[in-house]
This record gives sequence, C-alpha cells and structure tokens, in this order.
Amino acid sequence: MSDVTDPSTDETEGEDERRIELKHGAGGTAMRDLVNETLAANFSDPADALVCLADMDDGAVVPIGDANLVVTTDTHVIDPPFFPGGDIGRLAVSGTVNDLAVMGATDVRGLTSAVVVEANYPVANLERIADSMAATCAEADAPVVTGDTKVMGNGELDGVIVNTAGVGIAEHVTPDAGLSPNDVVIVTDSVGEHGISLLAEREGIEFGSDLESDVKPLNGLLAAALETAGEGVTAMKDPTRMGLAGALNELARKSGVGIEIREERVPVTSDVKGTGEMLGLDPFQIANEGVAVLGVAPTAAEDVLTALRDHPKGTNAAAIGKAIDDHRGRVVLDTGIGNRYLREPASEPAPRIC
Amino acid sequence: MSDVTDPSTDETEGEDERRIELKHGAGGTAMRDLVNETLAANFSDPADALVCLADMDDGAVVPIGDANLVVTTDTHVIDPPFFPGGDIGRLAVSGTVNDLAVMGATDVRGLTSAVVVEANYPVANLERIADSMAATCAEADAPVVTGDTKVMGNGELDGVIVNTAGVGIAEHVTPDAGLSPNDVVIVTDSVGEHGISLLAEREGIEFGSDLESDVKPLNGLLAAALETAGEGVTAMKDPTRMGLAGALNELARKSGVGIEIREERVPVTSDVKGTGEMLGLDPFQIANEGVAVLGVAPTAAEDVLTALRDHPKGTNAAAIGKAIDDHRGRVVLDTGIGNRYLREPASEPAPRIC
Repeated sequence: MSDVTDPSTDETEGEDERRIELKHGAGGTAMRDLVNETLAANFSDPADALVCLADMDDGAVVPIGDANLVVTTDTHVIDPPFFPGGDIGRLAVSGTVNDLAVMGATDVRGLTSAVVVEANYPVANLERIADSMAATCAEADAPVVTGDTKVMGNGELDGVIVNTAGVGIAEHVTPDAGLSPNDVVIVTDSVGEHGISLLAEREGIEFGSDLESDVKPLNGLLAAALETAGEGVTAMKDPTRMGLAGALNELARKSGVGIEIREERVPVTSDVKGTGEMLGLDPFQIANEGVAVLGVAPTAAEDVLTALRDHPKGTNAAAIGKAIDDHRGRVVLDTGIGNRYLREPASEPAPRIC
Repeated sequence: MSDVTDPSTDETEGEDERRIELKHGAGGTAMRDLVNETLAANFSDPADALVCLADMDDGAVVPIGDANLVVTTDTHVIDPPFFPGGDIGRLAVSGTVNDLAVMGATDVRGLTSAVVVEANYPVANLERIADSMAATCAEADAPVVTGDTKVMGNGELDGVIVNTAGVGIAEHVTPDAGLSPNDVVIVTDSVGEHGISLLAEREGIEFGSDLESDVKPLNGLLAAALETAGEGVTAMKDPTRMGLAGALNELARKSGVGIEIREERVPVTSDVKGTGEMLGLDPFQIANEGVAVLGVAPTAAEDVLTALRDHPKGTNAAAIGKAIDDHRGRVVLDTGIGNRYLREPASEPAPRIC
C-alpha cells in the first residue's frame, strides 16, 4: 500500500510523524478534533447557509429560493457488508435518508449512489446490494437520481464501499442546536440493535435469539411527528456512530442546555442488554441506524409520542428525559440509584460499524 | 480481503461466477453495461426529475420550486494522490464543480466532502489534501457545506479516496441530449494533459518538458459562455474518464445526431502528443479534468468562442467540428486524409486515473 508517491515532496519525510488511527474514523471526540484541525480548518462557510460545515450537524441547510435545502453525505464502509437484518445497501440509503430526515427534510428529493468496488468482487453480491438499495428507496419514497462507479485493484480495497449523498426540503429545520430547557427528549425505538448485532456477528457469537440490526429509513415516521407538532419539534438527531450517548452529548453541547435522562425509560431489549454484557459493550454507546432522538416542546410531547407510536416504525417510542438549565453541555443519567454523567466516548469500540 | 462473510447466504457459492473487472470502473461501455444491468436496474426515476439516473448524464436535475437543482457525485480514487499539476483534493473539487457546471449549474450552492482513509496514513498528507480542496473551493467560489470521515484498517484501503457530491442551480440546463444538427462543437482547452501526465508519472517516465495535469474548476469559464449565449449553448460535457472520444460519442448518441470533427482543429500540445506516442496512448481517449466540450447554436458560436478565449482558462478554446444529420449516434473524424469513426473505447487504458 503506497502513501504518497510524488517524489517532488518531502513533507512526509520530516518530523511530522502523526498518523491516522482507527479512532479518527469513529465519530467521537478524536474524529471531531481531526476534522476541526485538519480536514475543515481552511474551509470558509457560505454566508447564506443556515447550517454549515462548522456546525458538524447531520447535514447542511442551504437556501434555494424560499426553500431550505438540506444536503448530507456519508460513506458506508461496514464490515461485513451483509449482516443479520440488513446489508450495506439498506444501510447506505437509510443512513442518508435519516440524516436528511433528522434535519427536518423528510421530503427526500434525491439521493446519489457512489459505489467503489474491488476488482474480482462477485457481481452477484453487487446486484444484491443494488436490489436492496432500490427496495429501501421505495420504502422511503427516496429516488436515487445519479451515481458513480469506481473499481480499485484487487487488494487495494476490502470488498465494497458505498457513498450516498442526499438532498431534501425541510419546511422546518430541526438542528442539533434547537433544544431549550424543559423540551422533552424522545427516542423512537429501542437502542443498540444495529451495533450490538453487527459486532456479535463479527465476533462469531451464536445467539439463541433473533437479535439483528434494525436498520431502516425513518423519514415517514419523523414526518408524522412534524405533521403533528410542527415547530414543536425543536431538534432531531440520528444516534449513529457514537450511539445514544454521543447524540445526547452533541445535542446538549450545541444547544447549550443540560439533558437529564432516566435510564429505566430508555428502551433496550433484553437480547441487546445480554449480548452487550457478553461483549463488554454499552448499548448506549453503540451505533444505531434505525432510531432517532427528538427534542419536543413540553406542550407537544404527548401528541408527538402518540403520533410516533401510531406509526409502525415507532411503536417503542419513549420519552426518556428532558433538557434542563443546569449541567449545560452535559448529559446527566439518573440510574435509579443515583446520578452520573453519561459521557461521549472518544472513539467507538469497533471500526467499520456503519 | 473478505468478500461476503454472512454465513447465512450462499448466493455467491453457486454457478454465478461473474466477477468485477477493472474495466467496469473505467467509464466506458463495460461500465455502462454493469450500471444498467446491475446497479441501476431496479431503481425507478422520480416523475418530476428533468434529468435522472437513466440519462447517465454528468448530473441529475431536480426541480425545487422554480429552480433547476443539479445534483452530482463522484468518488475520486486517483493513484498517486499527489501528481504533477494537482492532487486528489483539487481533482475532487474540480471534478464535482465541473460536473455541475456542464449541466448548466455554474452557480455552485454546496459541495460535500467524504474522505475515506487508511489507518496509519500520514496526517500531514491529509492536511495537504484538505488545504488543496479549500484553495480550489475558493477558486471556484464553491463552498463545502458538509462532510464525512471514515477510517478503514491498514491494508483495507490503499491510501485515501475522496467522494465529492454537489448541488447547484442551473438557469438553463445543458444536457448531453441537447445537440441539434449544425450546432458547433467547441472544446475549451487542449486535451489529454491530465491523463497522459498522470500515466507518465505512474510509469516513472522522465520528461524534458513541463507536462503536468491541467486539472481545474471551469464553472467561471462556462458561466462566461452561458452569459454570452444563454440557450444558444445547447449541450455541455466533461470529457473525463473516456476522454474526448467518449464525451463526443455520448453527446452524439444521446442527442440523436452525428458529430463531425476536424482532427487538426483539436488542440493537443506537442508534449501530450509525444508522450502519448511513447506510452501508446491516444490523447483523444484519455481522461481530462480541466476541459469542457460545448455544443453551441451556429449563430452564437463566434460570440461564445470569443467569450471563452477572453477568459484566462479558455485561451486555447477551439471550434473542432459540428453536429450533423447523418451518422446519427456516431462521431466522424476527418483526419485530413480521410474520414473514420472515432470510437468510444470499452474501457480506459488504466484504472484509478480520476
């Protein structure tokens, strides 16, 4: 594997020995530092963007006439690409649809699909992935409008990766920074299934259970919440790479509020709990791709909960806590026997989980 | 390198032994067949898209209110990532800006940047790439609005790859299918520099010359053409992976016209000619990323040529031929001693050139 083959440069030959580590790709504080210091340091944000690169939200918001255009991108490098409950195609479409939806853009106007595949990869597998993408697009009413295909040499890439970018229109933008004290914090489903089942699969652990990823597009579900409460939905977030703990910390930090969570109210299945314990993994700190976190104004919370639970993808929705005035930028977990800060890990327990 | 590790499937174990080959990623007929038969087979296009997946154009066009939103994506896997005249960062921004611009969207509203990097990659190289992206964005007045970073294990990816997607607004869409008979065909610059210089670098060939990639964003140049002629610019295309020959064949096929090209009028530098001969490469069939092909109504051709040549990035612009009523879907090359069809190759001479 070559790094830089340009003989005219010696920038990598000097004293700068810093190297990328796996934790830099895990979505936590290590990645945030890398992005802030290296990847985004010299970019200037457009004057008219409502939510931009510096916000490090689930997507950007760019005005197009009177419309709020949400733009998002994610490269999916999940290993293995086929896993219980889904595959990289369903993950890629769901991931991008959900990034749009949690910004308020449940109306998906277009997805892009950019596949990079290793030479010698089975065409049949690529067909399965494409079929899965198409089926998930149909489920989300989200069209792929353009794409790209690249092939790398055998040994230059491990299998297949898929980048999906997307654009959608948000009537009401729901950024990470939208929470106010007393807003109710809701999760739409039990947490941890995707990450725990994937790592269990990777570790070759056998289950006596049906534990599998719950990866799914959520724009229809979140549209129901928005239709019910409009601007009463103040913030939404996709608790992906750093799990629920990461999402809650980001919401608290960007909104300048504290968040108080009642641990017993957070839905976690017994399969996820048990397998997580076996693997030494905290279900609050592992990636999801079929769950959203919402902040809702107190007056709208009951109606939103009802609307979510009436939707087939929201039957497990639960109010798990609220934004508070104290502990700004932090998440307080009420465990039932006391309070502790729920911290955002520096990095994920495993790479290539989404 | 693992392919599919899901033990629950045996779809790859049966008789279907088809494998991805390098030619499938090269942008030619082999890739088109793969995309049509495998990757895009089950996608349905949105009813309101003006240019969509099935058109396989440089980008899609989605209406947002009264605006034509152009959406495009490309993953850049170029090897080496630093090369004479540019690097993967400048290439990624230019490639996406140019895909938007040749659809008519010279007003770039947002780019996304999704970097996938191998563990152990030098951070200093990533900084160089990010700096180059930022500088190219400033040159093109094209903001990166959101991004993604993933890290793969050491040995799971060869170095670094960058996906850039983009959105822009087109007042007048210039699709591949826009040519009419008698439209003048213009190239904005000499062809072949990017591909020939990159392959020469990769082969370790020494030059006594300054041959280097001319990778650059062209939205400012193409805006000058559009400002001059408006709808008189009927079609534009980025002659990237399959070179000028590929772009002209696509224009002819999609527009349902023939194209007649005078070989002597196509600007090719003597360095590119000489090095191409040494490498056995045809400058007409190799990737560019700093050149555009335009179709212009005959009455507007002179004004457009003047406007292009008045721009610092268009001083070499030349009218190289015209669309004709005969030879529909094909490109006729007048070599000066006779005519022959300029064919679109099935695949590029080398992988990872863009």
